[in-house]
Amino acid sequence: MKKIKPSVPRGTRDFGSNEMIKREYIFSTLKKIFSNYGFQNIETPSFENIDILKGNYGEEGDKLLYNILDSGNFLKNVKIDPKANYKTIKSKISKKGLIYDLTVPLARYVSMNRDKISFPFKRYQIQKVWRADRPQRGRYREFYQCDIDYIGTNSILCEIEIIDVILEVFQKLKYEKFKIKLNNRKVLVGIAEQLNIKERFVDLCVSIDKIDKIGIPGLKEELLKQNFDEKNINEIIKIFEFKGSNEEKLNFIKKIVFSSKIGIEGINELEKVLNYRNNIIIDFSLARGLSYYTSSIFEVISNDNDQGSLAGGGRYDNLTEVFGLKNSSGIGVSFGLERIFNTLEENKLFPKEIEKSIKVMVTNLGDDLLNYSLDITTMLRKNNIPTEIYLSSGKLKKQLQYANNNKIPYVIIIGEDEIKEKKVTIKNMNSGNQKLIEMSKVLSIISL
Amino acid sequence: MKKIKPSVPRGTRDFGSNEMIKREYIFSTLKKIFSNYGFQNIETPSFENIDILKGNYGEEGDKLLYNILDSGNFLKNVKIDPKANYKTIKSKISKKGLIYDLTVPLARYVSMNRDKISFPFKRYQIQKVWRADRPQRGRYREFYQCDIDYIGTNSILCEIEIIDVILEVFQKLKYEKFKIKLNNRKVLVGIAEQLNIKERFVDLCVSIDKIDKIGIPGLKEELLKQNFDEKNINEIIKIFEFKGSNEEKLNFIKKIVFSSKIGIEGINELEKVLNYRNNIIIDFSLARGLSYYTSSIFEVISNDNDQGSLAGGGRYDNLTEVFGLKNSSGIGVSFGLERIFNTLEENKLFPKEIEKSIKVMVTNLGDDLLNYSLDITTMLRKNNIPTEIYLSSGKLKKQLQYANNNKIPYVIIIGEDEIKEKKVTIKNMNSGNQKLIEMSKVLSIISL
Repeated sequence: MKKIKPSVPRGTRDFGSNEMIKREYIFSTLKKIFSNYGFQNIETPSFENIDILKGNYGEEGDKLLYNILDSGNFLKNVKIDPKANYKTIKSKISKKGLIYDLTVPLARYVSMNRDKISFPFKRYQIQKVWRADRPQRGRYREFYQCDIDYIGTNSILCEIEIIDVILEVFQKLKYEKFKIKLNNRKVLVGIAEQLNIKERFVDLCVSIDKIDKIGIPGLKEELLKQNFDEKNINEIIKIFEFKGSNEEKLNFIKKIVFSSKIGIEGINELEKVLNYRNNIIIDFSLARGLSYYTSSIFEVISNDNDQGSLAGGGRYDNLTEVFGLKNSSGIGVSFGLERIFNTLEENKLFPKEIEKSIKVMVTNLGDDLLNYSLDITTMLRKNNIPTEIYLSSGKLKKQLQYANNNKIPYVIIIGEDEIKEKKVTIKNMNSGNQKLIEMSKVLSIISL
Repeated sequence: MKKIKPSVPRGTRDFGSNEMIKREYIFSTLKKIFSNYGFQNIETPSFENIDILKGNYGEEGDKLLYNILDSGNFLKNVKIDPKANYKTIKSKISKKGLIYDLTVPLARYVSMNRDKISFPFKRYQIQKVWRADRPQRGRYREFYQCDIDYIGTNSILCEIEIIDVILEVFQKLKYEKFKIKLNNRKVLVGIAEQLNIKERFVDLCVSIDKIDKIGIPGLKEELLKQNFDEKNINEIIKIFEFKGSNEEKLNFIKKIVFSSKIGIEGINELEKVLNYRNNIIIDFSLARGLSYYTSSIFEVISNDNDQGSLAGGGRYDNLTEVFGLKNSSGIGVSFGLERIFNTLEENKLFPKEIEKSIKVMVTNLGDDLLNYSLDITTMLRKNNIPTEIYLSSGKLKKQLQYANNNKIPYVIIIGEDEIKEKKVTIKNMNSGNQKLIEMSKVLSIISL
């Protein structure tokens, strides 16, 4: 027989029951809030045709897609030139890829079902996504995203409701040490226009996106490496270093992008959001990595060291167009389960009540007694009391030990005397007390 | 801009919100029962190292595994001989595969975490699995399995509890038209020993497994094609054609496998289960396709035409051994979400109550009124009333139309008068009645 050392692929994890209970707590909190706001739950496949995925995540992102090898003889009808580049060969032997986020599948779903959907469409979606990224603290190759999105409306109410959802999520999870950062890609376009580097806008955003990790000095280096003009770099850094209230920041940036139509549009959109919600921080150095954002972008940053962003998103005006659905602006936010989990864990914010466990164990003291033990077990379960029966018959001491190890609060002991008298012995494992009682009294004792 | 016709890969599906509500109903019913029986929830990665998966599903099953292409330059350090077989090349360019079931990942998990787990280990797991199978009615390439398993015990109580879980699941789902079939691989081994074809046991099981689809005449043909002896084939068919009660069947088979030690063991195990549970049907023609089963095997068959099996499972004695954990018998059952869904749908068994929807829509009749509309919306949501605010300001008629289309029962209208009087107008969309009321009375009206 072959022997294999059991392990999981790098960047993936198993979750035991203690972790699952906590993860479910986050999921159900999110689902409840999402539904309350009128978002509808959908689910899409875990892999998509690769053409659907490619080209949406920027050059770096596209490299992190997981490809699925065509099934059967993938070399049938394929001539492999050993000298060919691996990318050329890849496109011949793999037509599908694991999803990288939930936004592109949504755009595909909405475009495909446009005749059945009533717009604006508000949906939520909680699924695993995969990225062949370098694993590190809080970053995995398989992880959950929890997304809400609006498709088919450019109402500023979307931005406002998304802020409200974020606030309610962390309020319900009892975590307060975070801030919501807001920016607008149009302002960044305005800056690029002003500096005459609009054709390098994508490179600019990719560089700025690294600022969280490398800081302002690192960004300066990065921009130099990317061959940006030193004068322009200083101008950009000056904008990012400006300190002040949201109002002061907007007044400052207005003077810089005053001649850019799109820049002014971005500023107006930021001001509109601020008219209704003021518990956010305008941050012009927020860029977001994904290439599909076109307007509002936001991120939820934990004040605890090192956690990175707990949620992030933005508005995308053209994502469905590639699938044939035009003029259908979308906006959404994605909550990162793994980082929220780590944050709640470190701050000890998981409520104790969620740790439900088995309430009763019924003994199994021999084949003659088993039918009676089984009947009691069934009765308890029918009354929604989580109950285990000890699986192998054996000594009472060992069975009580099992109940003790598994923190089961009550044990029901069934021996010959109990059957004769048609009663049961119930033992409270905390106090150690036990008594012989009528079957009918079991439920009321256990429910105490 | 590139144009792409949006579609999903063959054998996969999108689920809209109506389907999601029904799927969640099945999931939550199962989860509740599984927990009540003391099974703990775990989750494992969606892909595993390919060596973990291969070799467990029989020759046919292994072919249906989805391989994931190594990331980055998968041809680096790989010499491709254009004449090589695709299987040789596959093993060089793909080290991971999507999971095919939840049982093998469980065996890997348990073996890996043996020091942390207290045995016997009872776990449940609900996840997607993937098979590159030919799609057909009720069979998809991506689907959910809902599994319970015991690892580390050979107690017959496992078989008994699994039968109880199956009965409770379908009772809670209000579906009665099914039967539970039970067999034991050891009896099949006994038959093979008796006929002197033990070395062809795997081929025999694979052929028998097709009986549901091809019937007895088809099986006869299949066995001939597999080069089984005609005399043996007639003997096998005779066993499968025997009609009678469970007791009669067992007496009949005893006479056939009387000299096979393992066959007698299998019969004893069947009898033990029948001692405690009699709502099952012994069926010697039940073989199950997977190669890892060693003892009890069972299947839940719908009496409705065409649905195939709703659940199935069995005992496997050696699955963890390959991962270095010996003497650790396991047993489990897998509920097939998709077929249960189709069955409930066709029998109209989804309860109406689960179709929750938005309860209130708040109007948006202009920017001056928006803050007041937002405040009302927030207040309702804080009171757990699913509420939408109309996203773009516009004519009242259009907004009422939207509420009507989406079956929202109440609309709260906020105009200038309402703000002046600090009241709201509430409209019952079913009756068409509306009245101006105090804010404080909204909740009591809506909760009616």
